[in-house]
Amino acid sequence: MFFHRKHLQYSAKPERPDPLFAKMLQEPLGGQWGEISVMMTYLFQGWNCRGPQKYKDMILDIGTEEIAHVEMLATMIARLLETSPVEDQEDMAKNSVIGAIMGGARVEDAIVAGMNPQHYIVGGLGARPSDSIGNPWTAAYTISSGNLLADFRFNLTAESQGRLQVSRLYNMTNDKGVRDMLSFLIARDTMHQNQWLAAIRELEEDGLETAPCPSNFPQEREKSEVAYQFVDASEGGESRDGGWAKGPSPDGKGELTWSEARPLTEDQGQLGQVDPRVYGTPAQPVPPAAAE
Amino acid sequence: MFFHRKHLQYSAKPERPDPLFAKMLQEPLGGQWGEISVMMTYLFQGWNCRGPQKYKDMILDIGTEEIAHVEMLATMIARLLETSPVEDQEDMAKNSVIGAIMGGARVEDAIVAGMNPQHYIVGGLGARPSDSIGNPWTAAYTISSGNLLADFRFNLTAESQGRLQVSRLYNMTNDKGVRDMLSFLIARDTMHQNQWLAAIRELEEDGLETAPCPSNFPQEREKSEVAYQFVDASEGGESRDGGWAKGPSPDGKGELTWSEARPLTEDQGQLGQVDPRVYGTPAQPVPPAAAE
Amino acid sequence: MFFHRKHLQYSAKPERPDPLFAKMLQEPLGGQWGEISVMMTYLFQGWNCRGPQKYKDMILDIGTEEIAHVEMLATMIARLLETSPVEDQEDMAKNSVIGAIMGGARVEDAIVAGMNPQHYIVGGLGARPSDSIGNPWTAAYTISSGNLLADFRFNLTAESQGRLQVSRLYNMTNDKGVRDMLSFLIARDTMHQNQWLAAIRELEEDGLETAPCPSNFPQEREKSEVAYQFVDASEGGESRDGGWAKGPSPDGKGELTWSEARPLTEDQGQLGQVDPRVYGTPAQPVPPAAAE
Amino acid sequence: MFFHRKHLQYSAKPERPDPLFAKMLQEPLGGQWGEISVMMTYLFQGWNCRGPQKYKDMILDIGTEEIAHVEMLATMIARLLETSPVEDQEDMAKNSVIGAIMGGARVEDAIVAGMNPQHYIVGGLGARPSDSIGNPWTAAYTISSGNLLADFRFNLTAESQGRLQVSRLYNMTNDKGVRDMLSFLIARDTMHQNQWLAAIRELEEDGLETAPCPSNFPQEREKSEVAYQFVDASEGGESRDGGWAKGPSPDGKGELTWSEARPLTEDQGQLGQVDPRVYGTPAQPVPPAAAE
Amino acid sequence: MFFHRKHLQYSAKPERPDPLFAKMLQEPLGGQWGEISVMMTYLFQGWNCRGPQKYKDMILDIGTEEIAHVEMLATMIARLLETSPVEDQEDMAKNSVIGAIMGGARVEDAIVAGMNPQHYIVGGLGARPSDSIGNPWTAAYTISSGNLLADFRFNLTAESQGRLQVSRLYNMTNDKGVRDMLSFLIARDTMHQNQWLAAIRELEEDGLETAPCPSNFPQEREKSEVAYQFVDASEGGESRDGGWAKGPSPDGKGELTWSEARPLTEDQGQLGQVDPRVYGTPAQPVPPAAAE
Amino acid sequence: MFFHRKHLQYSAKPERPDPLFAKMLQEPLGGQWGEISVMMTYLFQGWNCRGPQKYKDMILDIGTEEIAHVEMLATMIARLLETSPVEDQEDMAKNSVIGAIMGGARVEDAIVAGMNPQHYIVGGLGARPSDSIGNPWTAAYTISSGNLLADFRFNLTAESQGRLQVSRLYNMTNDKGVRDMLSFLIARDTMHQNQWLAAIRELEEDGLETAPCPSNFPQEREKSEVAYQFVDASEGGESRDGGWAKGPSPDGKGELTWSEARPLTEDQGQLGQVDPRVYGTPAQPVPPAAAE
Repeated sequence: MFFHRKHLQYSAKPERPDPLFAKMLQEPLGGQWGEISVMMTYLFQGWNCRGPQKYKDMILDIGTEEIAHVEMLATMIARLLETSPVEDQEDMAKNSVIGAIMGGARVEDAIVAGMNPQHYIVGGLGARPSDSIGNPWTAAYTISSGNLLADFRFNLTAESQGRLQVSRLYNMTNDKGVRDMLSFLIARDTMHQNQWLAAIRELEEDGLETAPCPSNFPQEREKSEVAYQFVDASEGGESRDGGWAKGPSPDGKGELTWSEARPLTEDQGQLGQVDPRVYGTPAQPVPPAAAE
Repeated sequence: MFFHRKHLQYSAKPERPDPLFAKMLQEPLGGQWGEISVMMTYLFQGWNCRGPQKYKDMILDIGTEEIAHVEMLATMIARLLETSPVEDQEDMAKNSVIGAIMGGARVEDAIVAGMNPQHYIVGGLGARPSDSIGNPWTAAYTISSGNLLADFRFNLTAESQGRLQVSRLYNMTNDKGVRDMLSFLIARDTMHQNQWLAAIRELEEDGLETAPCPSNFPQEREKSEVAYQFVDASEGGESRDGGWAKGPSPDGKGELTWSEARPLTEDQGQLGQVDPRVYGTPAQPVPPAAAE
Repeated sequence: MFFHRKHLQYSAKPERPDPLFAKMLQEPLGGQWGEISVMMTYLFQGWNCRGPQKYKDMILDIGTEEIAHVEMLATMIARLLETSPVEDQEDMAKNSVIGAIMGGARVEDAIVAGMNPQHYIVGGLGARPSDSIGNPWTAAYTISSGNLLADFRFNLTAESQGRLQVSRLYNMTNDKGVRDMLSFLIARDTMHQNQWLAAIRELEEDGLETAPCPSNFPQEREKSEVAYQFVDASEGGESRDGGWAKGPSPDGKGELTWSEARPLTEDQGQLGQVDPRVYGTPAQPVPPAAAE
Repeated sequence: MFFHRKHLQYSAKPERPDPLFAKMLQEPLGGQWGEISVMMTYLFQGWNCRGPQKYKDMILDIGTEEIAHVEMLATMIARLLETSPVEDQEDMAKNSVIGAIMGGARVEDAIVAGMNPQHYIVGGLGARPSDSIGNPWTAAYTISSGNLLADFRFNLTAESQGRLQVSRLYNMTNDKGVRDMLSFLIARDTMHQNQWLAAIRELEEDGLETAPCPSNFPQEREKSEVAYQFVDASEGGESRDGGWAKGPSPDGKGELTWSEARPLTEDQGQLGQVDPRVYGTPAQPVPPAAAE
Repeated sequence: MFFHRKHLQYSAKPERPDPLFAKMLQEPLGGQWGEISVMMTYLFQGWNCRGPQKYKDMILDIGTEEIAHVEMLATMIARLLETSPVEDQEDMAKNSVIGAIMGGARVEDAIVAGMNPQHYIVGGLGARPSDSIGNPWTAAYTISSGNLLADFRFNLTAESQGRLQVSRLYNMTNDKGVRDMLSFLIARDTMHQNQWLAAIRELEEDGLETAPCPSNFPQEREKSEVAYQFVDASEGGESRDGGWAKGPSPDGKGELTWSEARPLTEDQGQLGQVDPRVYGTPAQPVPPAAAE
Repeated sequence: MFFHRKHLQYSAKPERPDPLFAKMLQEPLGGQWGEISVMMTYLFQGWNCRGPQKYKDMILDIGTEEIAHVEMLATMIARLLETSPVEDQEDMAKNSVIGAIMGGARVEDAIVAGMNPQHYIVGGLGARPSDSIGNPWTAAYTISSGNLLADFRFNLTAESQGRLQVSRLYNMTNDKGVRDMLSFLIARDTMHQNQWLAAIRELEEDGLETAPCPSNFPQEREKSEVAYQFVDASEGGESRDGGWAKGPSPDGKGELTWSEARPLTEDQGQLGQVDPRVYGTPAQPVPPAAAE
């Protein structure tokens, strides 16, 4: 069960409105690697967790923190939208919002053209649960497999992609208020990368999971002759020099080898014929066919 | 540029048709963590790569191999569908395909009810580019950020979630032909997990990337006081015992600490008033408003 | 900022596992009118609210409660999945999970065929953020317009559609534990319908909004001759008897009238010709055209 | 069965082309609350209606009218696109369509950059069935539940959100022809809000439905102690002052009360262990497991 | 503008309810090649048409007819759902809707498990605007390019795929009422294939379009040496025997030739280095970089 | 199985970067009619093919070629993005990437506002698998029905719509390098239109398929009286003059006739009443109803 406290986790006040940056800041809010994604991912992983209680508790801690990050970004975006294009124009009485664009275009008008139109038309100058290009967030971004190693590797990825995007956005503004909030989010992503690295290490120490994931599938049932073999399907041999093509494997269970790509079967993928009432094109003409 | 050889990489022949397993086998073909996802992800990462040539080459090697895995799964599914429901019925002349269901239902009919109806109606007993529940594959599953560490962590995740799903499917059939192909795919996923683990290690050895990702953002611009602090936002203290709440951080750059969740600001998220012509509900009544 | 308490808001314990009902119970969790939808809708409405504080506070109260409903449903679904198909079978050692289906089909197997395959393959017997047919939840279900009357009417709808669906599901099970939880959710939906009805009334009493919504658009700018006229575009006159075609309008600002459908213009929608370099088909043949 | 008359319902002629406004006008055509949504929603509600004939007839009347609104908006957008960027440029012979942008940029070029690129590339300067940011319309916006009260509440919402959006757009242009058409659409939305308010009232007078919806679920099966209780899950007490937390309930069936949020159960959501062959992470290490 | 007549175009009465066939019949209603797709495609093509009036009129004729087909299918599906699972059970008083499934499973219950759960939970036994597997219809299925030849080729495809699917469905039922309606739809698809074939022929006779489409792009600007060359990128030479690899081209403008696949450039796709503040992985290590 | 050669099929080098054209060039890469669509469509058609080997081989030839087209476009887009907005600015030290926009706006900044923000934030200046407006590519664009005539008609459409779009794009740039690549793609589309036209002709010559498609459904089961009748559902008679309303039908199997639209049945689509526990609104009031 959840409780809300009105204070934000960290302040979210821009120096001034900026509708273009508001559009871009939707990416870390409602994009694939944004805060809604990690919030929903961690909450579902936590609720579905059948592993030791310390993991379940930790996952729900961070999932709950992420709701606060969604709240901060939504608030920041609503504030970046607070001066509508109308208010920026000198003679508000004489102009419609962007009506002046085609006759006597000005640079300010062109900037309006770059806004997310749904910020105005649909959201009434509030934040939207979508990404920087307007795709609505989808729960397909929520990952919860029941296997903590597979999921923690995903979580580490999410914190990496997320920190990368926020770092890029940091370079797209010089608003001190916005940068202050971004520096907080970047720092939390640093922590969360470390958190998942530590959790992955601890899973192994606890004897619960190890590489290759899932570690509980009996490896003797794999086609073992290709389980540690690098396959080179591309002209040129640069890839042969990498650490992935020789030496002991990182999981400690094999020796990496190199091979050029080649078929391991005579099977050429020919398919058989099916009931003519499916009306697929057969190898030979057949008479008309319908059910009785 | 690409070339096709008719032989499959590995054989894909079931002992017998099984439309229900065909439905389930769509998950590793066209699901979020299926072969189309890794094929497209690796190809885009390779084409977009600005890093050293050995990485670009290696990524395209594996991306090219994955096209062959898509081909194997598509072929297997088409073969699992080869005996249509019609052909299984004793008196084909007297029955429509599933018409007998409501009057005098038989177990065979009920099984037909569990098929993916699009395998028959839309695909004509061929494989579909969608998952086990019928959602079409979407390119939102394709990840390519330009940062190899962020992307290799994703790739490691994809090979983990993928191997997990194929391992589960292995337990859902006892068809020897199907299991043989799955044992090949599981082995390749073992290799590919090792490959990405090796590549992550090599990125660091090459001095190109390290944790936290992206390593090139100046850490002095982070809000450093929260960069190594575990925040406990959930009742109960089990998470305090984990390796993520104490000791040196895995990135080697900080000391992990624990803190209970609390706001770091007085900001309560209040928003300002905006142009009344947006027709949002204001804090106080305002007179009607339209543009001139 | 948010905090989590480990106790659920209300108990979520089924008498026994039921994978088919687990599939159906995804609808009130991750469907269009499910708990994720109202949770996200109310949170975004609250964060974006520029109206009086009592509304903002109230919206966030209910938004926060809805996270707990998501938690309860996720927990219930995970428990309904706890006995996997394997464990129900007498001779677990001899059978694969559903391998027995095609040869010697049994009713139990057929039921397995009706499961959501992603509950097993993708989610590892945990809840999914998707609906009863497997479509992932999308943020397009999140409504926040900045206008509280428009949004509260949506909220009233959501609680109506939601209560309707849960009432239907109540009739699809006789598991006492499941029904107990559903009776709690139905009661909360009763409250929430009343809550939004009361809030709509209060908006009007506060002088902030009234019908037609948005009330702040100057009505003299409407094409007033059609603002209270019922248009009958369908053969037959039953609709003429309804309260929508005569008498004072519910908004108290007009008199309802009836009219048969007819065009109010001579405009037949003809379009002009455009630049031939767009290569649309013109009304007359034109010579080949490319840019210089 | 349907018939088409060539005259539009109301004229749809802009004073001049405006590709930016054409982009924005896609929202009331193909957005979530646009005319395609109400057209499809009303048609499906009508076809699926099992209630009294006067409702079915009325719903199909308005559904049929909405097809004409889709037609008007599509026509208007195609006309707003009629002067292509090429034609606006002084020296058409010397310039490619927007090729001049990077070298010697002009404001006109920048405006072109704000166009919906699919209006040109995909649609050939015709209207698109998508919203102002380019998301294709989806039938998930179509609501038809079989319960007229739940659906009429949705319809009232749709006419409110729609009128709100068109009112905003009215302020974004000063083209007299566009505003004339918008003033017609706003007036129809006024009527349609009144229509659904009247229909909701009539449903109750006819004894068919009343609050809470669905009214036919036996209320003694609800968990009655929470059916009229406001739950305060958020710090601060402003919400306690609202009409939703005290007094008789709007449905006339209860007395509203206030309560702080608290769990009503000892259940902490712990899950049981499942078949190890699902390869989820268990609470304790287990030996490797595959099917026989 | 549109008008509705209550009579269906053709009767849509099944002999008896059949919830499984109702699920499958969603494909020609709301699937990619279903009636909603052709209705919306033809209406948008008609409204956007800038070609001769006879084409615009004809396109709107068929677009209007297709609304009636949507109506017929929606009606048929609602009727196929009319006997709910409850009513089929002998002792309705003792059983919940599908509660009996897990204990004492019966074949009837298993069939219920194959229903589209949204037909019951969401739609209240009415038709849904989605396909046979539950994906909501999307306007991405609507094609309107402004070029009539490109679009008529699409229309011919749609009538082919649609007729194929309905023919398959014809074989999946023996309900005389359902088959009667399907035989009507199949006949209309025969007509519509002929209609588009005739229209394609007429476009050429009118001098408006011809192959290759668009015919107005100056062919001297093509890279002419590859404009009539078959490229063989796959091992094996069966494709060399086809009519596509030799002889005069069907458009009458070239001679078809055969070539094995080979690169026509030395370009290997190497990319340049970009601003380090994008944090992509470079070819060489660079110092940390943030904006000033 | 597939192999990669590092050389591109044709060169993909722009004269200079152009982020706006990069955005637009996403349409032929990841749009509905882009290269990913034809690549995936042809590969699936090839793998699923049960027809003569020459067709299967030919389809896989072209499917394999299309992978190379995807590669060329991805490379071109990455190169068009190579000069980031930062590098174009005179005083890189003093400005954030687009921070200067709001204060002292310049035309260059406005152009940046028109970029696809995900090219920078998400893709790190690499190509994306999405269209010109940012919608991710979806496998719903992949068509494979098992019937070669239905599919070849689709393929012909795809090459027509694709060539149309690339021709439009040719007119939107004057970059010689870009135009060179586009002239190659246009030429290949010319070939591929001819290829599918030839293949359609050959299918008929081989006796495998003919119009109406599918040709194997027994035409005596159609409702023959409407199989060659044009239905005029729209006011005005221009469509009566077309070749689709008179004369022998293109399939050679009937005589085209004209008819005004009219119902062929007395059926008005009335629905029956269903179980009251579904809580739909009935024609008459009923008492409350729940399951036992």
